[in-house]
Amino acid sequence: MANQYCVGVDLGGTNIKAGLLDADAKVLSKLSLPTEIEAGRERVIQNIIGSAERAIAEAGVKREQVVGIGIGSPGPLSHRQGLIINPGNLTCLQNLPLRDIVTQKTGIKSTVENDANAAAWGEFWAGAGKDVQDLVMFTLGTGVGGGIIVDGKMLRGYFENGAELGHIIVRHGGRACSCGQLGCVEAYSSAHNLARYAEDLIAAGRPSSLKSLMDKGQMLMAEHIVDAAKAGDALAAHVWDEACSCLAATIVIMQHVTNPQRVVLAGGMIAAGNFLLEPIRNHFKKLTWHLLDDFPDIQFATLGNDAGLIGAAGCAWEAHRLNDW
Amino acid sequence: MANQYCVGVDLGGTNIKAGLLDADAKVLSKLSLPTEIEAGRERVIQNIIGSAERAIAEAGVKREQVVGIGIGSPGPLSHRQGLIINPGNLTCLQNLPLRDIVTQKTGIKSTVENDANAAAWGEFWAGAGKDVQDLVMFTLGTGVGGGIIVDGKMLRGYFENGAELGHIIVRHGGRACSCGQLGCVEAYSSAHNLARYAEDLIAAGRPSSLKSLMDKGQMLMAEHIVDAAKAGDALAAHVWDEACSCLAATIVIMQHVTNPQRVVLAGGMIAAGNFLLEPIRNHFKKLTWHLLDDFPDIQFATLGNDAGLIGAAGCAWEAHRLNDW
Repeated sequence: MANQYCVGVDLGGTNIKAGLLDADAKVLSKLSLPTEIEAGRERVIQNIIGSAERAIAEAGVKREQVVGIGIGSPGPLSHRQGLIINPGNLTCLQNLPLRDIVTQKTGIKSTVENDANAAAWGEFWAGAGKDVQDLVMFTLGTGVGGGIIVDGKMLRGYFENGAELGHIIVRHGGRACSCGQLGCVEAYSSAHNLARYAEDLIAAGRPSSLKSLMDKGQMLMAEHIVDAAKAGDALAAHVWDEACSCLAATIVIMQHVTNPQRVVLAGGMIAAGNFLLEPIRNHFKKLTWHLLDDFPDIQFATLGNDAGLIGAAGCAWEAHRLNDW
Repeated sequence: MANQYCVGVDLGGTNIKAGLLDADAKVLSKLSLPTEIEAGRERVIQNIIGSAERAIAEAGVKREQVVGIGIGSPGPLSHRQGLIINPGNLTCLQNLPLRDIVTQKTGIKSTVENDANAAAWGEFWAGAGKDVQDLVMFTLGTGVGGGIIVDGKMLRGYFENGAELGHIIVRHGGRACSCGQLGCVEAYSSAHNLARYAEDLIAAGRPSSLKSLMDKGQMLMAEHIVDAAKAGDALAAHVWDEACSCLAATIVIMQHVTNPQRVVLAGGMIAAGNFLLEPIRNHFKKLTWHLLDDFPDIQFATLGNDAGLIGAAGCAWEAHRLNDW
């Protein structure tokens, strides 16, 4: 695999990131360009392919040295069929056979993967999980995403919607989630929803220093909750603690299902640092069983915003290794 | 694989069942003998080996046609190390390297597997899941056991305690489980615990036709709850409905984790038939999301009490196929 390379493409609603990586996850080039959703399906496809071509060109390697292109995309999608199905914020790409289009137009074998899965693969391949074979990753951002590696392999599931960890139910009859369920961990622990939870409690009359922001018409953000909780606001502390408790409950569930060695936490919310990690670890200890000490260690991701790009390239490397495009 | 056979041994606290199976899961011999726990470790080992030898002898095949022995045992155990660790009702077998002992004494390659995993493998190989590659099995008996097949492979997890599905938490802060957690599905939905739940509610003053049994000093059984619920007892109906609701919530969780095509329900409780299956299916529909229709079908196991024996032989066949003993 010396002198061979794979492209990773991280397709987002605003930007497309692309880069060229070698088999040791070394990044030889990296760039970002606008997705241009508003310009429609054909333009977005052109931009995906253009980003890959530029990543190759900027790295200065020969085209024949590039053995694969991996694309991480918002789901739902079918990795097996290479098909983008119905991505929430990229509706212009509905039912798009992206893998075959990219393969055909570039002449390079391609693969597509759910973006949360790709990011988990990135941390497994080159980040916080590179020394383990069994991990579970939670991406804590606007929503709660997930990815699962079992015995060094991506877990996708029969319908290819596995590892939708944000929709694990942790509070029976609890808060309504946008997915239609009640009590999903995403309804309590995502950056977006924990702020909504605080707003709901304040609107219902619970006292909080955050009310003044709401009275000014400002939408609460996760950062507001963190700052207020640190400053001693009881309501903010409750909302934050509940977010951490729900995540810990989800980790206990994953302990008993895929029984990972490591749990990796990623996404914008990990900027909260130990203010997030310590309560999650403490709630986990309180919630888990006493029968066995099969406790995963709980760590932060290390690849930051590059996890998607790196993981997408890693997925291409894995497809190359298995010759399974 | 014509004219080749594997032995399956289902090691229980009271009896050892053994049989000889061909590669198509056809059972050529089947027998049961007492485990004799009270006679101690060496006798139990002798009985395990003796049951396997008898299964071979009774089938009338040549010893050299037998390519493997699979043993399903209560856990925790290490399949990878072939080690029985600390089985609750077989304490005389603690830290027993059973795989190597059986291999050495019989001259036939052997493998050990958690009994719930073995039963799930049996249904996957030869029962309710033989047409699928991704399934989750729940064994509903005294406890709630589990087994998970992903893409045709057993999911064991890093610590080899995966698929402990009875300890998925479905009621935050709920009933105490013997494992030390609160709100496990096992605390609501096992045959043993749902009867305890009814007793607790009656002891706390809730009216029920079952009180007369308790007043006679009788311990309630799951069958009493089913009969009373069918006869219109509101408390029994509530306890039964809660057991079904908790199981359905666990199925929703598994839908979002390993995303199986099929969920198989096994164990003594499935004797309740549609009185169990219909409420589970109905609760599942109410609890699951509306985003995608990735719903597993929910069916009963078909192998009955032979699932453990058949699955143990199937595990040996799989080890033979992969040459991974």
